[in-house]
Amino acid sequence: MSAIPQGFVEKTSKLSEEVTRPFPNSRKVYVQGSRDDLRVGLREVEQTPTHTDTGVEQNPPIPIYDTSGPYTDPEAHIDLMQGLAPLREGWVAERGDTVLLDGPTSEFGRRRQDDAALASLRFEHIRAPRRAAPGRNVSQMHYARQGIVTPEMEYVAIRENVKLQALRADPSYAKLLRQHAGESFGASLPAEITPEFVRDEVARGRAIIPANINHPELEPMIIGRNFRVKVNTNIGNSAVTSSIEEEVEKMVWSARWGGDTLMDLSTGKNIHETREWILRNAPMPIGTVPIYQALEKVDGKPEDLTWELFRDTLIEQAEQGVDYFTIHAGVRLQYVPLTADRVTGIVSRGGSIMAKWCLSHHQENFLYTHFEDICEIMKAYDVSFSLGDGLRPGCLADANDRAQFAELETLGELTKTAWAHDVQVMIEGPGHVPLQKIKENMDKELVDCFEAPFYTLGPLVTDIAPGYDHITSGIGAANIGWYGTAMLCYVTPKEHLGLPNKQDVRDGIITYKIAAHAADVAKGFPGAQMRDNALSKARFEFRWEDQFNLGLDPERAREYHDETMPKQAHKVAHFCSMCGPNFCSMKITQDVRDYAAKQGLTEDEALRKGMEEKAVEFVKTGVEIYKAV
Amino acid sequence: MSAIPQGFVEKTSKLSEEVTRPFPNSRKVYVQGSRDDLRVGLREVEQTPTHTDTGVEQNPPIPIYDTSGPYTDPEAHIDLMQGLAPLREGWVAERGDTVLLDGPTSEFGRRRQDDAALASLRFEHIRAPRRAAPGRNVSQMHYARQGIVTPEMEYVAIRENVKLQALRADPSYAKLLRQHAGESFGASLPAEITPEFVRDEVARGRAIIPANINHPELEPMIIGRNFRVKVNTNIGNSAVTSSIEEEVEKMVWSARWGGDTLMDLSTGKNIHETREWILRNAPMPIGTVPIYQALEKVDGKPEDLTWELFRDTLIEQAEQGVDYFTIHAGVRLQYVPLTADRVTGIVSRGGSIMAKWCLSHHQENFLYTHFEDICEIMKAYDVSFSLGDGLRPGCLADANDRAQFAELETLGELTKTAWAHDVQVMIEGPGHVPLQKIKENMDKELVDCFEAPFYTLGPLVTDIAPGYDHITSGIGAANIGWYGTAMLCYVTPKEHLGLPNKQDVRDGIITYKIAAHAADVAKGFPGAQMRDNALSKARFEFRWEDQFNLGLDPERAREYHDETMPKQAHKVAHFCSMCGPNFCSMKITQDVRDYAAKQGLTEDEALRKGMEEKAVEFVKTGVEIYKAV
Repeated sequence: MSAIPQGFVEKTSKLSEEVTRPFPNSRKVYVQGSRDDLRVGLREVEQTPTHTDTGVEQNPPIPIYDTSGPYTDPEAHIDLMQGLAPLREGWVAERGDTVLLDGPTSEFGRRRQDDAALASLRFEHIRAPRRAAPGRNVSQMHYARQGIVTPEMEYVAIRENVKLQALRADPSYAKLLRQHAGESFGASLPAEITPEFVRDEVARGRAIIPANINHPELEPMIIGRNFRVKVNTNIGNSAVTSSIEEEVEKMVWSARWGGDTLMDLSTGKNIHETREWILRNAPMPIGTVPIYQALEKVDGKPEDLTWELFRDTLIEQAEQGVDYFTIHAGVRLQYVPLTADRVTGIVSRGGSIMAKWCLSHHQENFLYTHFEDICEIMKAYDVSFSLGDGLRPGCLADANDRAQFAELETLGELTKTAWAHDVQVMIEGPGHVPLQKIKENMDKELVDCFEAPFYTLGPLVTDIAPGYDHITSGIGAANIGWYGTAMLCYVTPKEHLGLPNKQDVRDGIITYKIAAHAADVAKGFPGAQMRDNALSKARFEFRWEDQFNLGLDPERAREYHDETMPKQAHKVAHFCSMCGPNFCSMKITQDVRDYAAKQGLTEDEALRKGMEEKAVEFVKTGVEIYKAV
Repeated sequence: MSAIPQGFVEKTSKLSEEVTRPFPNSRKVYVQGSRDDLRVGLREVEQTPTHTDTGVEQNPPIPIYDTSGPYTDPEAHIDLMQGLAPLREGWVAERGDTVLLDGPTSEFGRRRQDDAALASLRFEHIRAPRRAAPGRNVSQMHYARQGIVTPEMEYVAIRENVKLQALRADPSYAKLLRQHAGESFGASLPAEITPEFVRDEVARGRAIIPANINHPELEPMIIGRNFRVKVNTNIGNSAVTSSIEEEVEKMVWSARWGGDTLMDLSTGKNIHETREWILRNAPMPIGTVPIYQALEKVDGKPEDLTWELFRDTLIEQAEQGVDYFTIHAGVRLQYVPLTADRVTGIVSRGGSIMAKWCLSHHQENFLYTHFEDICEIMKAYDVSFSLGDGLRPGCLADANDRAQFAELETLGELTKTAWAHDVQVMIEGPGHVPLQKIKENMDKELVDCFEAPFYTLGPLVTDIAPGYDHITSGIGAANIGWYGTAMLCYVTPKEHLGLPNKQDVRDGIITYKIAAHAADVAKGFPGAQMRDNALSKARFEFRWEDQFNLGLDPERAREYHDETMPKQAHKVAHFCSMCGPNFCSMKITQDVRDYAAKQGLTEDEALRKGMEEKAVEFVKTGVEIYKAV
């Protein structure tokens, strides 16, 4: 732990090639919205044709929700030194309800700005921050409640639909769009996500669009039970490892693999500067836990924290552009003793900091007592609350206990307070919960917190697999996502053991994309199963390249395939290494179909009819084998 | 693909050190049964003590169900050339209902035995096979229905209990044995697994003990809804890759990480010899899909298969000691057309072979028409049925369709037939099924197949993650295990892409151990949560070594930890690399407890009382902060 600047000393604008190379056989396409400056990026995976005995069948491109931002667009000019283009700048300005400030208004922000020793670390093109004009509220929820459909709302509507309406009108997608009925446990999934639906969901608090007015680089996205389930990733240096440069690279890496939002949990000396670099280059909403930085400012002594210092930290970060704050306002003094008999006590960093503060001062949590003051700050920049679950269980044994649920009830009370200020809210959830206790968490959250979006960490369904906790938690995440959780906070294989490296981050994100997608399919989100259908068709037809490219991680799929069958010829082979060329079930199935086809029995009905005719023959000879099913 | 002997050409008896080294800080212990030759191995993880301000608290050893057999016992003499000690030989012999044969009675078995060219490949110490004496039935189900508790039944009772009765009587385990109420969806989990309970479950067909009389090396285990959920692993060379030697090493590797049973799916030229090596060295039940080998014998042409050739193959394998056979007798001719309109047709190898045979001959599946003949063979050696799901779905789109369920209904009909012969049965299940359609599979199986144990492959809950299908399927496996599936067939990261290597096998098994354990905990299996509790306590107390050692994969946990904190001193550090030394939530929680302790408020009640007293003070000053929760 030293104050000597780390990383970016040479202010490189380089990202490694592996975080920016385009996905194979994919192209970035943009859907134009109702105004020139509103176009929504998505990725389309081109497919190769299917070759049959009777000719060639084209397979249409598959559009995919894309979190990677400009980094995978070969046309985009990327320069970390400049930051991303400020897409939303015009939208925010034209609303006419903000003022441009001369510079940071927080004491800490000004001090960092004026510290010459930090020049080598500092992002150079810092924009003047904005704040709501006096008496104004700039939250998306406030606009929504006024009946205003903002460009942000239209953007997320287009983004969530992923061209579904157009595909429905195109016959080449008809079979691909078939999907099973979902079980949504009471969600209200519409057939089409319209801007008006988005507005309505934001207005009633069932969804949030985290979008600080000082983060104009952001591509808006939405978190709510009636939208696609999202994945949050975390990065952050610690006193022991990591540098600013690594953190920015990790942010882009996280966007590449599908992270929808990102929390910067850095705890080192230069978090202010690290955060600036991340925000200026981040296409996704960025969240933080401001109490971490506040604690740094008092040299790690929770008892020295004060409301004034915390307030300054909120303003510092809000003016940088942080989109959501984890605030542990539900850790009330009276709940702390409820954790004393737990197996793992309080495992949330923020929760334990606040618990220690409360006990040290014999006072109620200042985040709770100053909650309305915090709301005033949130609505001046449109920072969303992520109400922290400081008393979440750290092991199965502590799951669903009184401490956890008492806090959840308080989060519900705070939700009402925030909503009275038109401030957007999501609710953090556990943690470690055995499978049979997960649904109770979701159900209670929906009731106690009035359907505010739930945002859970896993949960891990067992404690016995350190080194594999992306998996233990991915199981819980898929289930709770299915039950109604709006966003899943990823867990990497290094959880409980160490800081994740890039491969761990990739493994964690892909695991959570699986969980989120499984939940979308299970809920019956419109169009969710199309990618599964397209990939399965490619798989069955031995279109190896399409199978790789349609997957969540084309690079790894290809690499695994190449380990046993490296030759290019094998990519078009009608067999794979599992069974070898003469023993392939898919090949045999094709033979079965061909056999049927030769007899003019290609379709199910015709084939069954053919069988029935055969049955007559056989019945005649006394062998009854083709009974109606 | 060549007939030239591969592997074991030098007949090495060497296993690599990594597959046999003992687990850290663990010892192999044996629980003595009612007879001298019945002792059940399990593993005990020793723990280090907890150091507190007031002294040292001992942490008791944690016993763990152990699948690794003698390979992790430093006392055991391992020689692959000799095979494992034949534990069950006396049990089988003393029942007096079998005859020792002169040699293999299958035509193929004799031919391989007499082929001098195979000498370099052959396991040398082949025992004479046994068969039921004329008119006798040697299945565990038959004994169970006669009211006989076999040594195998007593063995599995002891094994399933993992010393639970003794631990319940020992106060040092009291806190560790606390667990949440389960949700078992109608299972009948007893508080204690007695030999009589085992007998009763086997008699009524709700559980099976796969234990061929020609596989005396086997350590008996049980598969049933009211026992611990089990994990099956697969190995097998193919025409493209792998050797006998690798397969044996993989078998031991699989046992090490927790595989409860193993299917040998080899399809090369020397499967007979490979299987012998595997069986003679396998402590777990071995399953096969005999139709694979039968197909080899007709040079890969399904239409050339005959009942006589298949029958010979069953006898060949039964006399080697295979414990369960996958038999695709439910792929009835009339069901084949139901698959024609599927996205991925028939993906089961066995299913597609039989479908092709049926269509080629316009005849009903000979496995169906000869099912009672097969039962006669099964009961003569005690081979269990694993009734194959040849029409299982190969993608989400095809899940729960008529083809799949029609076959399942037929498997139920066949179950009744097998039970009429006192032959043990389990039912294979899917496959690829979205989350919301999984429970229907389990419920239908329980009804249609009369609670015969369900044995599923995953299911995968999405098709879009090639390279990560251990995870997509692990999610489905945890759920279906919770709902009542008795055994989960593992899937590796290479699924759909290539053959797994050793690390893939390890990843696949650990993922499935997670799923199976999560299911045990969720069902409320007695004692299942103890390991979670012990590991969590170790984690909270910064007993790093204990945390690693209690996990499913101590080696990987340690390796991950060492990546960021390699020094030995860090293993006793009261912080970790995630947050660094000054910023650790667990440390802060301890401070909270210490703070409370200083005031004599260690226990929840006392602490709350203390708070109430404080409340009085504060209320006096007008600050009401300590309300009752």
